[in-house]
Amino acid sequence: MQQKIAAEFLGTFWLTFGGGGAAVLAAAFPELGIGFFGVALAFGLAVLTMSYAVGGICGAHFNPAVTIGLWVGRRIAGVEVLPYIIAQVTGAIVAAAVLALVTSGRPGFEMGAFVANGYGELSPGQYGLLAALVVEVVATLFYVFIFMRVTGPGALEGVAPIAVGLALMLVHLVTLPVTNTSINPARSTGPGLFAGAAYMAQLWLFWLAPVVGGVLGASLTRVFKEK
Amino acid sequence: MQQKIAAEFLGTFWLTFGGGGAAVLAAAFPELGIGFFGVALAFGLAVLTMSYAVGGICGAHFNPAVTIGLWVGRRIAGVEVLPYIIAQVTGAIVAAAVLALVTSGRPGFEMGAFVANGYGELSPGQYGLLAALVVEVVATLFYVFIFMRVTGPGALEGVAPIAVGLALMLVHLVTLPVTNTSINPARSTGPGLFAGAAYMAQLWLFWLAPVVGGVLGASLTRVFKEK
Amino acid sequence: MQQKIAAEFLGTFWLTFGGGGAAVLAAAFPELGIGFFGVALAFGLAVLTMSYAVGGICGAHFNPAVTIGLWVGRRIAGVEVLPYIIAQVTGAIVAAAVLALVTSGRPGFEMGAFVANGYGELSPGQYGLLAALVVEVVATLFYVFIFMRVTGPGALEGVAPIAVGLALMLVHLVTLPVTNTSINPARSTGPGLFAGAAYMAQLWLFWLAPVVGGVLGASLTRVFKEK
Amino acid sequence: MQQKIAAEFLGTFWLTFGGGGAAVLAAAFPELGIGFFGVALAFGLAVLTMSYAVGGICGAHFNPAVTIGLWVGRRIAGVEVLPYIIAQVTGAIVAAAVLALVTSGRPGFEMGAFVANGYGELSPGQYGLLAALVVEVVATLFYVFIFMRVTGPGALEGVAPIAVGLALMLVHLVTLPVTNTSINPARSTGPGLFAGAAYMAQLWLFWLAPVVGGVLGASLTRVFKEK
Repeated sequence: MQQKIAAEFLGTFWLTFGGGGAAVLAAAFPELGIGFFGVALAFGLAVLTMSYAVGGICGAHFNPAVTIGLWVGRRIAGVEVLPYIIAQVTGAIVAAAVLALVTSGRPGFEMGAFVANGYGELSPGQYGLLAALVVEVVATLFYVFIFMRVTGPGALEGVAPIAVGLALMLVHLVTLPVTNTSINPARSTGPGLFAGAAYMAQLWLFWLAPVVGGVLGASLTRVFKEK
Repeated sequence: MQQKIAAEFLGTFWLTFGGGGAAVLAAAFPELGIGFFGVALAFGLAVLTMSYAVGGICGAHFNPAVTIGLWVGRRIAGVEVLPYIIAQVTGAIVAAAVLALVTSGRPGFEMGAFVANGYGELSPGQYGLLAALVVEVVATLFYVFIFMRVTGPGALEGVAPIAVGLALMLVHLVTLPVTNTSINPARSTGPGLFAGAAYMAQLWLFWLAPVVGGVLGASLTRVFKEK
Repeated sequence: MQQKIAAEFLGTFWLTFGGGGAAVLAAAFPELGIGFFGVALAFGLAVLTMSYAVGGICGAHFNPAVTIGLWVGRRIAGVEVLPYIIAQVTGAIVAAAVLALVTSGRPGFEMGAFVANGYGELSPGQYGLLAALVVEVVATLFYVFIFMRVTGPGALEGVAPIAVGLALMLVHLVTLPVTNTSINPARSTGPGLFAGAAYMAQLWLFWLAPVVGGVLGASLTRVFKEK
Repeated sequence: MQQKIAAEFLGTFWLTFGGGGAAVLAAAFPELGIGFFGVALAFGLAVLTMSYAVGGICGAHFNPAVTIGLWVGRRIAGVEVLPYIIAQVTGAIVAAAVLALVTSGRPGFEMGAFVANGYGELSPGQYGLLAALVVEVVATLFYVFIFMRVTGPGALEGVAPIAVGLALMLVHLVTLPVTNTSINPARSTGPGLFAGAAYMAQLWLFWLAPVVGGVLGASLTRVFKEK
């Protein structure tokens, strides 16, 4: 169990440091910036690479919505849920702290949105609450559904990290303009702590919507009997 | 059969919501926009990820031109063709509706082209009818040919979603400027309904050309005896 | 043998139509253009996808430099070399013709460089003859070396299309500014015919350098005994 | 052993020529430039492709920090460490020389930063020493951890090149603005020699931080008993 906790901590650290770092450091770099596209790739590759590295240890959730979905789908024991979520949130907070240290090492630094999630005036494209809710629920639903299908009994060995990582990449390509993309409460909590009170006041949505989406995705998975 | 229908519905929903969402929400975002490149990636990743998730259930067509091609190539029964197509078109329409809801949640929203397909004045690069017809037929021909080769008897297990998803990505890299890329009548119908009458008046081309291309691709597949 | 010829024709058509089409139609599209990056991806994905589709039939050379390298490396019979090369060149010419038809379907169309290869004043970045020669030889050397290592006896099944396609992508990321990237005489000949006499006068380089690089790559492969 | 040395030389050449070439030749090309994003992709693809090509011969380190990490983790013999590092550094220097030749073949050429690594005024985004140190140590730590996990006993066959190549890509997406991304002392030394004395005066950091990170990553790997 200790190894699982450590692996989830590392994976969620890497997701937040990699994806968040690409957003904070490189997305809007003058002339050479990687844009939303590079941020989407970074989040996806972070999950893909650490899933290959530690998937055999902990299942590579790196996301409370996935952990809760797997619990609803009876793939993990209830006793594991809380330790997993604590490891994930801790990993994301530590990653955000390291990232804050790095990004502050630049002349003229300002923290700004710091890759936190938001809606309304805090949405990158000023999308409102309803739009934010819809994309977060729908995206998490599909993400958890894909996750559970490619990791379930009978699934092909070795492809799950590719399918899951690229699903996360796709979700970012669609939803970065709306909410800066959460579908992961841990990833929202870490940067949110550094972005300030306005972002923290919206954090509830990025716990509620991914968890609802994850439960729906797990339920949908149980509809399908065939492999 | 019900499980197949449900899986095709979900896959085509994801294709239209993912690819179309990237186009509508993120492609032209100021400074950080993902451009045609990100849209191409999104369509490809949508097919790749859902093919891994539900390919074992339904074969992961997500496209009437593929379904018709497989029928011509004697890979599926005739009785399955219509239910598959209905599931695909329904999935695309529901996805377009959800996407319309999301995108309208932005101040100053206008529907505009809404990722619909078109030629002439409705082509992103003002390409005419002949150019549109040629690219849609040629691209669908190769797409269906690649699909049938990598899913046929003797094909290597587990790589079909990669080959098919990346083929769709490539098709978009080439043809987005010409027709906004269809090669998929379901994907054209969903957004077309929301983009308005001018786009609907051109919808026939995006049923005709992909189906012709799909039949040609299936015929070409039958030329090759070797694996 | 007829099936091999047909498969090489189709593969080289797809490479030239896909990669060249991305360059001609989408690279410099206003605001949403895919740039050199999208062109590199398109060439790589074209080889990757058709290698999965027809690699089992013909070996998926799609390139005279690869065919000659494999012959030097004693992987194919001498009697196959010329038919392969004729199929490849014909495929590229037909693809360029279809592409010329499509691209001319735009108001204000001018043929321009039409994805032809060149050096000096015809190089995208005005690189001279020596730079062009060096990058084409070095890039083809590594491309053919990688190709032969991942397709040789004892190579892992199913990964060759990924390694070869992504190697071609990388080559384009580096050398597009220098020569518009050939490393493939067939791909140079097709578009060259449509780009005009100035480009055709430089075509010799894009036969000579890739063939020299291919022979060197094949020789290097024979140095390594281990798998 | 000679074959291992040759393979490490070739791999590190390709990494430096491919990744560095994308940076020097294509990153800032007017209108069509590939940006930091294309540079990240190029470095990742270079390692991915040569890992498939020669991984079976030499283990595909291409990086002194990886070699030292594997030695600390008792995966390679101490007697191999120095020959590997010499081959890697030599490969990077030769690649930088070829790249300098190519890039000088352009009218109005100036050497400039020439893809060398730096901090403070030599950082692309003017990040200071501490930020540079942190990102290089953290990124190498995770890179070597992922490398060792996916190549260790019990690891899935054939996926290591994908996981390692994409991990390198991700590292670049995050850290290019900070240090131009090293995590690899050989890759820093080659271009550094051509970029001039100011860059060479900072080279120590790009030996120290990656080696420290590599040792930490190897130590972390030993914490995990499970596969």
